[in-house]
Amino acid sequence: MLCLSISLSLFSLFSVLKNFITMAMKSAASSAVRSLLSSSSSTFSRNLHAQGERKKIVGVFYKGGEYAKSNPNFVGCVEGALGIREWLESKGHQYIVTDDKEGPNSELDKHLPDAHIIISTPFHPAYVTAERIKKAKNLELLLTAGIGSDHVDLNAAAAAGLTVAEVTGSNVVSVAEDELLRILVLVRNFLPGYHQAVNGEWNVAGIAHRAYDLEGKTIGTVGAGRIGKLLLQRLKPFNCNLLYYDRLRMNTELEKEIGAKFEEDLDAMLPKCDVIVINMPLTEQTRGLFDKNRIAKCKKGVVIVNNARGAIMDTQAIADACTSGHVAGYGGDVWPVQPAPKDHPWRFMPNHAMTPHISGTTIDAQLRYAAGVKDMLDRHFRGEDFPQQNYIVKEGQLASQYR
Amino acid sequence: MLCLSISLSLFSLFSVLKNFITMAMKSAASSAVRSLLSSSSSTFSRNLHAQGERKKIVGVFYKGGEYAKSNPNFVGCVEGALGIREWLESKGHQYIVTDDKEGPNSELDKHLPDAHIIISTPFHPAYVTAERIKKAKNLELLLTAGIGSDHVDLNAAAAAGLTVAEVTGSNVVSVAEDELLRILVLVRNFLPGYHQAVNGEWNVAGIAHRAYDLEGKTIGTVGAGRIGKLLLQRLKPFNCNLLYYDRLRMNTELEKEIGAKFEEDLDAMLPKCDVIVINMPLTEQTRGLFDKNRIAKCKKGVVIVNNARGAIMDTQAIADACTSGHVAGYGGDVWPVQPAPKDHPWRFMPNHAMTPHISGTTIDAQLRYAAGVKDMLDRHFRGEDFPQQNYIVKEGQLASQYR
Repeated sequence: MLCLSISLSLFSLFSVLKNFITMAMKSAASSAVRSLLSSSSSTFSRNLHAQGERKKIVGVFYKGGEYAKSNPNFVGCVEGALGIREWLESKGHQYIVTDDKEGPNSELDKHLPDAHIIISTPFHPAYVTAERIKKAKNLELLLTAGIGSDHVDLNAAAAAGLTVAEVTGSNVVSVAEDELLRILVLVRNFLPGYHQAVNGEWNVAGIAHRAYDLEGKTIGTVGAGRIGKLLLQRLKPFNCNLLYYDRLRMNTELEKEIGAKFEEDLDAMLPKCDVIVINMPLTEQTRGLFDKNRIAKCKKGVVIVNNARGAIMDTQAIADACTSGHVAGYGGDVWPVQPAPKDHPWRFMPNHAMTPHISGTTIDAQLRYAAGVKDMLDRHFRGEDFPQQNYIVKEGQLASQYR
Repeated sequence: MLCLSISLSLFSLFSVLKNFITMAMKSAASSAVRSLLSSSSSTFSRNLHAQGERKKIVGVFYKGGEYAKSNPNFVGCVEGALGIREWLESKGHQYIVTDDKEGPNSELDKHLPDAHIIISTPFHPAYVTAERIKKAKNLELLLTAGIGSDHVDLNAAAAAGLTVAEVTGSNVVSVAEDELLRILVLVRNFLPGYHQAVNGEWNVAGIAHRAYDLEGKTIGTVGAGRIGKLLLQRLKPFNCNLLYYDRLRMNTELEKEIGAKFEEDLDAMLPKCDVIVINMPLTEQTRGLFDKNRIAKCKKGVVIVNNARGAIMDTQAIADACTSGHVAGYGGDVWPVQPAPKDHPWRFMPNHAMTPHISGTTIDAQLRYAAGVKDMLDRHFRGEDFPQQNYIVKEGQLASQYR
């Protein structure tokens, strides 16, 4: 046992040194917001001394308010605090939790200067900008409770030597289920019927004239990573024509199992689709990907579902296409900025199925991402690596999907 | 070819005679509303002389109104008239189409005395009572454009020697898809989120505290006929625990393919289920099946989806259970009487996902059941039998599911 510990420690030291050299080389080439020396050496020393240190951890979550006590498993809100307060405090760490995240007078900003770790979620994201990173001199680690870390300026984080990680896989099933829900809501024209029920009306024609079966329709996913694949698997028994566009083609066996056909060219796939689902991260390449021109390439009467990120769409182009009827329905739970402003055009356009950012924060998902965050904190305190697939920024380098 | 025609005619004649004898025997034993002689002999002569006769056909559908012209495939409304007007009139038949179906001064009642055939739908049902059957002296055939003929007094129709048939299978996929939609809407707590989006709000907690994944939940279908099976097949990739209660157990191979476990005792299945879906016809045995006592046997927080028939539920018991929270969500498109009155309690109870009767009348379903009705009319005019599975009442006998 002793031998093992020593060899592990030697291995860790070697690993840290190797990382330091790798990162130093990368940082030198990047547009670092801090000087190479300060960022890399501080990361180096932090990692080395991580074990046993008392940390200040800031969690930014949505407020539970009147709902906080309604469900013992509701751990994703400020009050629930991921269910890790007792554990963190028993280890001597300080744990600040807030939903106040906007502007220089926010609780978040107040705690930035001495925070070591920030935990946030895509549902109520703490926007960790280059400016905030500059203020947070002690920052080591940014954790996303969920999936999608685009609320962090990843290049600035990389240049500053920070680690960014998320709970990969924690809510992919939750999001895929919700995508199928929104496809059905729009293709089947559910909402006008619901409104009639609530408003004392009965006009079957007002629903039926534009309600369709999903069966037999062509559905294309733009991106077929974890969530896209889960969606395709759930769509298989619906007897649709399934297509996927991705950087990488699946192997033949998986393609056959899922029953989807690979499309090499996005713009060639779009006109074939009755339903288009967005399943890619927000990056500089995907920002505004669905602008006026690309939407015009879609079939008239297309349904678009986007639970990925709002900014992949051109906001006004989507609103205009819903108004003109070129897009027959748009549904999703993501908005370019969150919370979405009261006057956001997607709240008012016809035939939408929008909600606040919710699909990845079901009670089941909360329990999974809370457990994933706890695991990563525990590993961080012990100076251990995270599961490899969780890293978004590690040693100055962005994960492949964000490059 | 000639030989074939002659043998077919002889076969038809034999078949008619055989049917006459069978029916006469059955009618004699039944509580006929007409005398045996008049009903059986008139049916006999109608069948014998059907070919070439000019018929009066009354179709009762929902009105298209402002939506009638919006979609060339919108054939299910009064204006669309199943797309068979030209065909019927070219054959010399009279085709009356209306949505006016209630009370003795309705268009339907006006045309009853000399109507030979009534076509109606479950979405806007012409209630063909014993009294109406008595008035309709020339009536031969009642066709349901869709599935579910409980709007007809089937015993009275049988006693009167009428044939009742529906387009079996025409919209089973449509209904099964819609059931999965409503399960997701309720389990995932979609509607409060949608309301927030529309109302300019953003309160993730207000949705998330009672939003769940479907994965891992126990779903039981009460009835696993055509629609129930299609639902179970679509649920399979969701990794749920699937149960079914039915009169008949599936064969082992199908059970394995579908991945659902047979439950022999309804009341033993109910407490296991997070989600209960009703998939049985309305009969005297199923009317009011879910009363206060049976609902109390369900798990607290259960979600119930009922696209079968509204009267399978005790209306007030469902409203009370939604109000108390024992039922966490109730969704369906069927109501005890349709159109549902403005003050029906299901319009106002909390956590519902109700619509007018719509799931079986998507555009795709309309095209299928319109084709099925045309096929049966064509066969009737030629004196040919319908596909066996379409019969609900034939030769004085009810189909097994209605017995």
